[in-house]
Amino acid sequence: MRTFECDYTEGAHPKILEALIRTNMEQMSGYGFDPYTERAAQKVRAAIGAPVSTVTFLTGGTQTNAVMIDLLTASYEGVLTAATGHINVHEAGAVEFCGHKVIALPEHDGVLDVDALEAYLSTFYADATYEHMVRPGLVYLTHPTEYGTLYTKAQMQRIRVLCDRYALKLYVDGARLGYALGCPENELTLGDLATYCDAFSIGGTKLGLLCGEGAVFTRETPRALLTQVKRHGALLAKGRLLGVQFDAMFTDGLYEAIGKEAIRHAHRIRDVLAAKGYPFAWQSPTNQQFVLLDEREAASLKKAVGFDLWGRTPDGRWIVRFTSSWSTTDADVDELERALPRKTDL
Amino acid sequence: MRTFECDYTEGAHPKILEALIRTNMEQMSGYGFDPYTERAAQKVRAAIGAPVSTVTFLTGGTQTNAVMIDLLTASYEGVLTAATGHINVHEAGAVEFCGHKVIALPEHDGVLDVDALEAYLSTFYADATYEHMVRPGLVYLTHPTEYGTLYTKAQMQRIRVLCDRYALKLYVDGARLGYALGCPENELTLGDLATYCDAFSIGGTKLGLLCGEGAVFTRETPRALLTQVKRHGALLAKGRLLGVQFDAMFTDGLYEAIGKEAIRHAHRIRDVLAAKGYPFAWQSPTNQQFVLLDEREAASLKKAVGFDLWGRTPDGRWIVRFTSSWSTTDADVDELERALPRKTDL
Amino acid sequence: MRTFECDYTEGAHPKILEALIRTNMEQMSGYGFDPYTERAAQKVRAAIGAPVSTVTFLTGGTQTNAVMIDLLTASYEGVLTAATGHINVHEAGAVEFCGHKVIALPEHDGVLDVDALEAYLSTFYADATYEHMVRPGLVYLTHPTEYGTLYTKAQMQRIRVLCDRYALKLYVDGARLGYALGCPENELTLGDLATYCDAFSIGGTKLGLLCGEGAVFTRETPRALLTQVKRHGALLAKGRLLGVQFDAMFTDGLYEAIGKEAIRHAHRIRDVLAAKGYPFAWQSPTNQQFVLLDEREAASLKKAVGFDLWGRTPDGRWIVRFTSSWSTTDADVDELERALPRKTDL
Amino acid sequence: MRTFECDYTEGAHPKILEALIRTNMEQMSGYGFDPYTERAAQKVRAAIGAPVSTVTFLTGGTQTNAVMIDLLTASYEGVLTAATGHINVHEAGAVEFCGHKVIALPEHDGVLDVDALEAYLSTFYADATYEHMVRPGLVYLTHPTEYGTLYTKAQMQRIRVLCDRYALKLYVDGARLGYALGCPENELTLGDLATYCDAFSIGGTKLGLLCGEGAVFTRETPRALLTQVKRHGALLAKGRLLGVQFDAMFTDGLYEAIGKEAIRHAHRIRDVLAAKGYPFAWQSPTNQQFVLLDEREAASLKKAVGFDLWGRTPDGRWIVRFTSSWSTTDADVDELERALPRKTDL
Repeated sequence: MRTFECDYTEGAHPKILEALIRTNMEQMSGYGFDPYTERAAQKVRAAIGAPVSTVTFLTGGTQTNAVMIDLLTASYEGVLTAATGHINVHEAGAVEFCGHKVIALPEHDGVLDVDALEAYLSTFYADATYEHMVRPGLVYLTHPTEYGTLYTKAQMQRIRVLCDRYALKLYVDGARLGYALGCPENELTLGDLATYCDAFSIGGTKLGLLCGEGAVFTRETPRALLTQVKRHGALLAKGRLLGVQFDAMFTDGLYEAIGKEAIRHAHRIRDVLAAKGYPFAWQSPTNQQFVLLDEREAASLKKAVGFDLWGRTPDGRWIVRFTSSWSTTDADVDELERALPRKTDL
Repeated sequence: MRTFECDYTEGAHPKILEALIRTNMEQMSGYGFDPYTERAAQKVRAAIGAPVSTVTFLTGGTQTNAVMIDLLTASYEGVLTAATGHINVHEAGAVEFCGHKVIALPEHDGVLDVDALEAYLSTFYADATYEHMVRPGLVYLTHPTEYGTLYTKAQMQRIRVLCDRYALKLYVDGARLGYALGCPENELTLGDLATYCDAFSIGGTKLGLLCGEGAVFTRETPRALLTQVKRHGALLAKGRLLGVQFDAMFTDGLYEAIGKEAIRHAHRIRDVLAAKGYPFAWQSPTNQQFVLLDEREAASLKKAVGFDLWGRTPDGRWIVRFTSSWSTTDADVDELERALPRKTDL
Repeated sequence: MRTFECDYTEGAHPKILEALIRTNMEQMSGYGFDPYTERAAQKVRAAIGAPVSTVTFLTGGTQTNAVMIDLLTASYEGVLTAATGHINVHEAGAVEFCGHKVIALPEHDGVLDVDALEAYLSTFYADATYEHMVRPGLVYLTHPTEYGTLYTKAQMQRIRVLCDRYALKLYVDGARLGYALGCPENELTLGDLATYCDAFSIGGTKLGLLCGEGAVFTRETPRALLTQVKRHGALLAKGRLLGVQFDAMFTDGLYEAIGKEAIRHAHRIRDVLAAKGYPFAWQSPTNQQFVLLDEREAASLKKAVGFDLWGRTPDGRWIVRFTSSWSTTDADVDELERALPRKTDL
Repeated sequence: MRTFECDYTEGAHPKILEALIRTNMEQMSGYGFDPYTERAAQKVRAAIGAPVSTVTFLTGGTQTNAVMIDLLTASYEGVLTAATGHINVHEAGAVEFCGHKVIALPEHDGVLDVDALEAYLSTFYADATYEHMVRPGLVYLTHPTEYGTLYTKAQMQRIRVLCDRYALKLYVDGARLGYALGCPENELTLGDLATYCDAFSIGGTKLGLLCGEGAVFTRETPRALLTQVKRHGALLAKGRLLGVQFDAMFTDGLYEAIGKEAIRHAHRIRDVLAAKGYPFAWQSPTNQQFVLLDEREAASLKKAVGFDLWGRTPDGRWIVRFTSSWSTTDADVDELERALPRKTDL
């Protein structure tokens, strides 16, 4: 039986793999100077409705965050993030490696507290000693967040206003963006992201690529982009690997279809969990569902189904995660439904 | 009338200046290879009772913190600090510039919460994803803290035990260390610091030098020390400037005398403030005294005496600071006493 | 007609692609904790005859060089390289990004001049000011070199002796290592590299992988390896992409076979070029062949066949490159032979 | 008898020391917000005839070079320098610590070969692979050079033209600038430097300060200057130490007088050396004079007078250095003349 522990346990979506197979022996230039990469960039620009954006492709999520943040900020600027933001928790210091302080702010279920952001910024510049402090240069958000939650359009607009007022860049980490876009509750389209953000990423790895994240700069293109990417060790010789995959992903609505289908499965999983009496840690509308278990329950459940021991509550209970993805099938969820014991039976 | 805003508003203590004048035309080698630097290091070693320590001298506090932390940690390790720690607030990102994440932990009036430290460390290594997180490599403390408060010996011992258990270095920022040592309430001697810490600094700038901080490594000497210091842009050609000053500071008990005398003045200032009805933000036994005022009171008081608008409480009141130093005289405090209005008269 | 401009113009060798297809829907853990990565590491260890080596896999060549050099050296140490070394010329400053000076030394057709290396090291430590200079920490070699040339066993042994004498690490960049191993003239086996080097890379991208370089540490394993790799933005979520490919590459002698076959084609290309009167820039025994042309000849030849305008001689002539690879066929070389004009006919 | 080994063997010029003594007990704000620093900056601006320049003061030479280069360049840009440039040889990797590659070019007696510079730049952008290389961002010169030699106005103009053509910044390291300005042979005034350079430094340490280098930005002021300086660990709490000294240095022509007087002594030393038969390694018009000796001669001469074993020629002879400075007196040179044996008597 398949595990539901995370959304990158398989290789590539069949259509992605098929594109790699089909183009495998074509001779192409390296470093992204191939027709597939160019076409993929055009399709991404069309999808976001921002024809003058710069789109490039990088291999992984940490790399994408580090490269984009470093390219969007001055060397001495810091990055504002929800304390739960990936760059503050699970990025192994990749942003600090580039010299930038990560400044953690309060959040609610992973969503940055916009009031706290506003308070931080107004306090910062009112402080007579602010020149001795790290100047904030960028706001980092994840959409969906690490908790599977979503920003509302109103929140995003307010953050953009603050960014404009305080001369900040706004960058959205979209490692799981497709699973936001596939959600009925989601208010932010690709076009909205292009409107509100200076840059955002379009995660491919968790949406069915072998690897690859789209990096979109909607306002200014960083100077010497290829050089800077390479300096970070992030330039792929066979750029086609990313170009061919993203070209396929943005053909015939595959990216959207994957997101929608995974969310349909996630909501079924949510319903199955609810029906069997599992309490949710918080409400997540996206492809990750979080349930609370005590130590004994978690151990017992492990024997029945595969999930992720995601974290702990302050009082020591497990937060466990069930994840759907591009690879989840109705049969998988049926099987989960059959195998999942009622919570009271753990 | 003199201001009490901070402890570095004058030049050098007369005995320090006198030493510079006396030695001015002696020819000496550069980069710390002069007899005064060597003698100063010996006197510091004697004062801390740690004859095998390595002692070097750097120009300023931020520089000392950045250099010592970078030399004591592996490149990928982070630094644990009270959220109020100088490196987390007022160091302009100098530690992140060296690539290290600064990890902020809870504190009480500037003193790191040792329970929170223990919880962080035990939770960290229990987390299955810890390899994706920044590995803690060093605990940073200030003594006295930014709030003028002090660590107890019991706290320091407990922190050392945690450092040993989790393979952490312990570094104490002693920018105002002399003002701790001059305090009756202080439990930690120079010898204790040498015992508990891997390294600590002995601030000179705030104790009456033109510039200069002693950097003490009590356990291991960093490899290629001079090279590493120079790489940080922290090596002074005329190292004598630091050596001569520290030699004089550690001659005939000057360092101790300065600390004691300044604390005597600080306690008089505290008594004056109390007698005139000023409420303290918290209890500080050292040379900085913190008083709460509202906006109107602060503006009114500014007309009478010189102090520092140090910060704000969450509810918006001013925390104002009165500081004594090596340069404070009884006459200064007498004058403050005369000039200071009763709080009710503001 | 195919181009001979470089060795990464196609996707993956059919057997590599087949392994990706076969394993595509298997569920595996991420970040290299999958059975294929483990098996690939074992097979690499077996191939190099160094069972206690640490083997990991990274996506690209620049990344591999930057990560390995940074992990092998202290933060303040520099890297010695032939002036023509990839890290000194075509790495966009990725090594300096990690804070290390790249120290260029004389070479002959890409091979580091070992006498110059010895002179540098003995002079360095004899210099009374060496503490003000960048301490050399590592020798970087490429095998084959950027010029397609090879180190002899005697050269490698001498370099190792110097590394031991001066406490240096030795790292070999093997981006095209398979094309050295496939050469009759090559004296250095994988086992020799394990013996002489502290670390080396086994390039996959140019040998028929979509992406991927093996990173071999033969003496000490860097502490916190996964964390350090992630900090560099170099950890792949779907580590299987690298593991599956390297597992296939080191199964049934594929790696060796690819190298040998490509060299057979390279030597045919060399013979074709020679027979048609093209002068070689220098003798290369490996898969890259370098020919001298003037401006007019180069322009004329471009109309007939595909090659790389690789560089210029000091007197302004073109050095052009013909490359074979895992994807070259006898039919390709036959076609080149037919299409290639005699030099005198250009 | 005094040694002539270098120009920073004493403390401060008497007038500098006197200014420190006179102002010692004045209360002033820290971090350069004192009236002396402001006045010093104004006087420097007046001296260079560039009233809109930004002038700040840093403690040492390496620090000044690292800070200014880092502030003047984009993070991914490299620095072009004569191979003999201080940042390439004796800066312990401080520039690479900030992430910038130092790109060494040919020189003649320490003067960058302008033809080589032009060739490098025109070749660089003609290279189809230049995006994979480190983009040059700044030209670094020293005036006088490490060899005591000087740039002509024509050379400086040509370099400026190249900088304009290739969008490079031009920075002159003036650690010994006063000793150039004091030279009859010098063609470049402070005003010329302001005209041709984006930034330059005015060294104080070697001209008679305890420490301190002026940092002049003539075109654009770096954003967040104080924050950036502090991030580098280069902000002094008692900024007055630098302000008071530079104020005194630029009062009543002291800076000029020091330079001229030292050059007068240097030329006497040169004449004494010549008269006693010592061969010069090259012609230096400034305060450092370089003489060739073999091993035996150097050892013999060491018994008679104090000088610096500066370096070796490729054939193993010593290049030894005699230096004058602000502290040299006629009596010193008289004594040297008496004590110096004829070369034939060594």
